[in-house]
Amino acid sequence: MMSFEPLTPTAFLTRAAAAHADRTAVVDGDLRFTYEQFHERSARLAGALAPLADGRPVAVLAANTHQMLEAHFGVPWAGVPLVTINTRLSASEIGYILRHSRASVLIHDAAFDDTVAELPDLPVRIRTDDDYETRLDAARPLARGVDDERGLLSINYTSGTTGRPKGVMYHHRGAYLQALAMVGHTGLSPDSVHLWTLPMFHCNGWCFPWAVTAAAATHVCLPKVDPAIAWDLIRTEGVTHLEGAPTVLSMLGHAPQATPLPHPVRLATGGAPPTPTILRHMEGLGFDVTHLYGLTETYGPAMICDWRPEWNSADADTRARLKARQGVGNLIACTPRVVRTDGSDVPADGTTVGEIALRGNNLMLGYLDDPEATAAAAPDGWFRTGDLGVIHPDGYVELRDRSKDVIISGGENIASVEVEQVIAEHPAVLEVAVVAAPDERWGEVPAAYVALHAGATASADDIIEHVKARIARFKAPRSVVFGELPKTSTGKVQKYLLRKESHDRP
Amino acid sequence: MMSFEPLTPTAFLTRAAAAHADRTAVVDGDLRFTYEQFHERSARLAGALAPLADGRPVAVLAANTHQMLEAHFGVPWAGVPLVTINTRLSASEIGYILRHSRASVLIHDAAFDDTVAELPDLPVRIRTDDDYETRLDAARPLARGVDDERGLLSINYTSGTTGRPKGVMYHHRGAYLQALAMVGHTGLSPDSVHLWTLPMFHCNGWCFPWAVTAAAATHVCLPKVDPAIAWDLIRTEGVTHLEGAPTVLSMLGHAPQATPLPHPVRLATGGAPPTPTILRHMEGLGFDVTHLYGLTETYGPAMICDWRPEWNSADADTRARLKARQGVGNLIACTPRVVRTDGSDVPADGTTVGEIALRGNNLMLGYLDDPEATAAAAPDGWFRTGDLGVIHPDGYVELRDRSKDVIISGGENIASVEVEQVIAEHPAVLEVAVVAAPDERWGEVPAAYVALHAGATASADDIIEHVKARIARFKAPRSVVFGELPKTSTGKVQKYLLRKESHDRP
Repeated sequence: MMSFEPLTPTAFLTRAAAAHADRTAVVDGDLRFTYEQFHERSARLAGALAPLADGRPVAVLAANTHQMLEAHFGVPWAGVPLVTINTRLSASEIGYILRHSRASVLIHDAAFDDTVAELPDLPVRIRTDDDYETRLDAARPLARGVDDERGLLSINYTSGTTGRPKGVMYHHRGAYLQALAMVGHTGLSPDSVHLWTLPMFHCNGWCFPWAVTAAAATHVCLPKVDPAIAWDLIRTEGVTHLEGAPTVLSMLGHAPQATPLPHPVRLATGGAPPTPTILRHMEGLGFDVTHLYGLTETYGPAMICDWRPEWNSADADTRARLKARQGVGNLIACTPRVVRTDGSDVPADGTTVGEIALRGNNLMLGYLDDPEATAAAAPDGWFRTGDLGVIHPDGYVELRDRSKDVIISGGENIASVEVEQVIAEHPAVLEVAVVAAPDERWGEVPAAYVALHAGATASADDIIEHVKARIARFKAPRSVVFGELPKTSTGKVQKYLLRKESHDRP
Repeated sequence: MMSFEPLTPTAFLTRAAAAHADRTAVVDGDLRFTYEQFHERSARLAGALAPLADGRPVAVLAANTHQMLEAHFGVPWAGVPLVTINTRLSASEIGYILRHSRASVLIHDAAFDDTVAELPDLPVRIRTDDDYETRLDAARPLARGVDDERGLLSINYTSGTTGRPKGVMYHHRGAYLQALAMVGHTGLSPDSVHLWTLPMFHCNGWCFPWAVTAAAATHVCLPKVDPAIAWDLIRTEGVTHLEGAPTVLSMLGHAPQATPLPHPVRLATGGAPPTPTILRHMEGLGFDVTHLYGLTETYGPAMICDWRPEWNSADADTRARLKARQGVGNLIACTPRVVRTDGSDVPADGTTVGEIALRGNNLMLGYLDDPEATAAAAPDGWFRTGDLGVIHPDGYVELRDRSKDVIISGGENIASVEVEQVIAEHPAVLEVAVVAAPDERWGEVPAAYVALHAGATASADDIIEHVKARIARFKAPRSVVFGELPKTSTGKVQKYLLRKESHDRP
């Protein structure tokens, strides 16, 4: 059995510490740790946690800091699952996750002291300051191996559109392979510098804590997406890679600090469909944008709009339109399918809508303590994403709408994403969301919610006429509401709030 | 079990055919195949082979052609192991491999008709011309899945230090992971164009048939390393990646066609230690050189001289010296060790010599039908490479000498004992010793030292022709020196004196 080693993403830190010991692994404010130090600190964290955790998960409520990175290695090395918690949740939501996951230890930033004070008693709370450092100093390094590569690595709670969040269980093998796919697709290498604009609490940061380490690149922490700080770090640290939801792209791309990049930066975006407009804008600044698609259940990006060099010669609009598609399976995933409700494949004609179904080693083990939801999620072995889409003749999948989001107006289906893309092209528009509003005559009509660029102006009629001039008139919104869009902590527009608003409106 | 898919490198072609169907997969002379066609042809090959192979291996004796690439997918899809044979071996050596592997089918180029005519009967011989095409046309596509990811994928015969070559068994999981490591380390992507200067019969081309396909890059075939053709393809096809032994670097770098590259080309070299001189020369032409190290038993490169960006500021000589080191474990390998004969680690001081020992998922299953050699190869779970080296304080391993008596000529291993045994068979020969002599073109060549029987006569040409008539011609000595052999008091030939003599000779 000399040729069998269980796959675990923590092995990437072991390798990096051996191969790149004295190179910079982590930059966090004024702190800098080498790979040897990052390894040592993570192993000491494991040593400190193992006796406290007693086989139960360790939860972390922290920003994108070096402690959060250390937890991605130290907690598995303590032999227990990692539970990273969305920092924008309420105390009652956090309490639910801690109880549901049976977490034994909560590591948290001082910024969450008030929230933590409201939580029911936990055996151990560790604050990421002197407390954390004292415990590391006192601990002996530990790096427990993995017996079963499909053992539980982490539990990531979905924001859940209905009811309680579900605990998505990741295994070591899946995260290992997903991390290798991210290395391959984003070209991470030892001279890469990765800026943490994506929350690590979200799908374990799409497995980038492990991918960046695998490549022995440098992690640059960013506790909060402040565009001024982000732009400063891009320039001073020589950032080459970052990721984020389209919202993050908007924040960065339209910040006052935004100027053409001094060096190439690869930017991966996903979590919500980016509009061709924002893709074009970011490319104009010099970002090399990769569009990814996935869910918590798929360790983040299971699909990639794998860029074909032949498309480089297309005009900017065509390129942006092609890039707005969700694409094909990633390196290690099975080929995605688009299926009808009976599980059969829709034709690859770019028009027949079905549900996107995924499969592969980068699918979760299931939902913690919820065998029914687990079984329902993949009735025939293919995970149903809940997202509707089409397959184009070239094999690329494109989202048409969330299944619950379809606007049916006078018997015609309207894809809200299509209307959104057109509105986003209006020069005054920063962000847009379109939902269905009830209508006595048509059943439903599109309702638009628009955030304008700072200082820009546009009327509802301007927006409506803009749409009518470009696509079928029946797809134009009947109402336009201006203002900031409500968003989840991960930057997704909370359409259900807009839908509720549009329903309640007289 | 929706999240468990057995790892197999053939899955990369399935993905590429789905994601990049109409893009160019293979260029072979005037032929061009898209990924859809490459997939279809490989699946038809599987369909043609399955009934013929009857569960036994399929052997291939072919140059770096599209058929050779197709065999890397079609043979596993037929559910049987692939045996690629070194095209420079003699008929008797090839016959041994076919018998030992119990191959059922031999696919071969017409160029080897004469050799094949000397072989004992095999059930089926398929010539890579009309015969091959006719069979593909008549076959139905087949792509058999893998039940056990550690099942036998291929058998690669080593030249062996003693006696007969050994059949190194690769498994699907190992090749899959090794291919992902090659993608990560060489930055292969959909806009890469890979020139086949490395023989695919050698460790399955370091797993690049699968790695290049994983990245959906373009394979450019090159049946024979002709520098004029290679340089022409680099320019006309826009080649971005190639690999080869240092000998290949010399051939390319010193060809009359060699001029500074019109675009960046990543070149990976290994198989023998490259001299700083050739590394500097290739970088001067614009090649971005990566130095790799591995063996047949490790699916090719298990180690990489992972380049640290901090070294870019060093002068050219220092850079070349740093790059001539064998380096650190690759992305998916365990951290290499350098051990004493008792299995303990030598200190990382850059001077204490030990044997390089490797471990990881990219280690062979073992030697076919040779449990003793398999057990001896990894007495404590760590594979002993037979290569001596040191570990520098920065963790990088550097070869110092080989413990076994192997001559590396043009990237191919020659066991001196094998050549000695053949020479010893000459009726005039009393004693013989063969050592490595330096050679500008091949790196090393065998040099023979021969003591004749009293009164017997033989010329250097006699000895050389004697060898060429019996084993692969490249194993024949380039020089023969006659005279008494230097010996220790206990009668052992003092090879180090002969080695010194062969080095000092003009």
